[in-house]
Amino acid sequence: MIKVYDLAGARDDHRFSPHCWRVRMALAHKGLPHETVPWRFTEKQAVAFSGQEKVPVLVDADTVVCDSWAIATYLEDAYPEHPLFGCEAARGEALFVKHWTERVLQARLVPVLLLDIWQGLHEKDKEYFRRTREQRVGTTLEAFCADRERHLAAFREALAPLRETLRAQPYVSGEAPAFADYLPFGAFQWARCTSKATLLGPDDDPVHAWCRRMLGLFDGLAAKAPGPG
Amino acid sequence: MIKVYDLAGARDDHRFSPHCWRVRMALAHKGLPHETVPWRFTEKQAVAFSGQEKVPVLVDADTVVCDSWAIATYLEDAYPEHPLFGCEAARGEALFVKHWTERVLQARLVPVLLLDIWQGLHEKDKEYFRRTREQRVGTTLEAFCADRERHLAAFREALAPLRETLRAQPYVSGEAPAFADYLPFGAFQWARCTSKATLLGPDDDPVHAWCRRMLGLFDGLAAKAPGPG
Repeated sequence: MIKVYDLAGARDDHRFSPHCWRVRMALAHKGLPHETVPWRFTEKQAVAFSGQEKVPVLVDADTVVCDSWAIATYLEDAYPEHPLFGCEAARGEALFVKHWTERVLQARLVPVLLLDIWQGLHEKDKEYFRRTREQRVGTTLEAFCADRERHLAAFREALAPLRETLRAQPYVSGEAPAFADYLPFGAFQWARCTSKATLLGPDDDPVHAWCRRMLGLFDGLAAKAPGPG
Repeated sequence: MIKVYDLAGARDDHRFSPHCWRVRMALAHKGLPHETVPWRFTEKQAVAFSGQEKVPVLVDADTVVCDSWAIATYLEDAYPEHPLFGCEAARGEALFVKHWTERVLQARLVPVLLLDIWQGLHEKDKEYFRRTREQRVGTTLEAFCADRERHLAAFREALAPLRETLRAQPYVSGEAPAFADYLPFGAFQWARCTSKATLLGPDDDPVHAWCRRMLGLFDGLAAKAPGPG
């Protein structure tokens, strides 16, 4: 059976990585049976067989694939039924949605979520996570995440293209959800599973309705995931 | 023959509207013979037959279509050969690229270009354009466009998703150009035809190479268009 190494927090069932959520939604979309293996940041040796140190890592018989985009394209090529993209042009455009999700959406969520993420981590990860992230952002998690309202305002401002798209159609991919939806949804699910912050503002009804539709997919896969605390 | 009303400046051959360029690239992509009619901002009555006051307006026998997105979807449905989208998912994602182009790319070019655009307009448009735009931005064109370097830095910062996408593949649509390329290219062509500003920075090589490919399409259609002055 397909196996996915999936970032976990204090509890084994606390799964919150945006990149892992993309993969879990993609596997559910394709209807592929799989099991997930809870993994923590400091368990580098557990995924060393993949030649790198991060999750998601997918193992399908003799095939090992890391990186969520590579996993999606592997699944699409190996299991063409229930397409994640639809056509080559859609796959190309989905790469744009991926980079927008990472460089804009997730980048603006980092200062909203970082301290909340740390609070939900397994004890074995807390020192490592705080040290590496404080080095990266150049200050304490507490200082970096102060002024949440300002960070949330910047996040909401960046939602404009998603908001306008979802005002006109139910999914980023048009009439039915596909990988171009799972990409930004991973960011929302990351926030939902780690923080009590209210991401959306009064203008965000189309995004809110889309999030509800995404949470309900695959028998409520994402809705059933435990939240923070 | 298909006819398109196309924004023009002082000279009839000075065409610079980003929304009109999308349509011209789409018509060339489909290989559809057409003629363009130079139109100025104050010639509201010339397009009144379309029920609104803006260009592009496309006239195809008895069919009148306004709005560049509606024109693209009309062309795709009426002339399916040489697809502008590729599949329904790609059309859905292209709408996201459209809104990103307008809300991010074009929005950040406005303070770079507005004064240059005004300088290239037909005399009959200059008073109207200055009055309506100054009302919209709440100050003079000169004050709004001061500090070009800051506006260019904000524009380049916003290019990240496009830059990362084009680092991995030659076009937004993947291996071949399609409407998801003509959308952001319209913004670059708008700048190229109105201003001498250097849009791209030293990190923007993938975007620069893509612009060159776009300029060369359809026998150099966009490259042949006259620039400012």
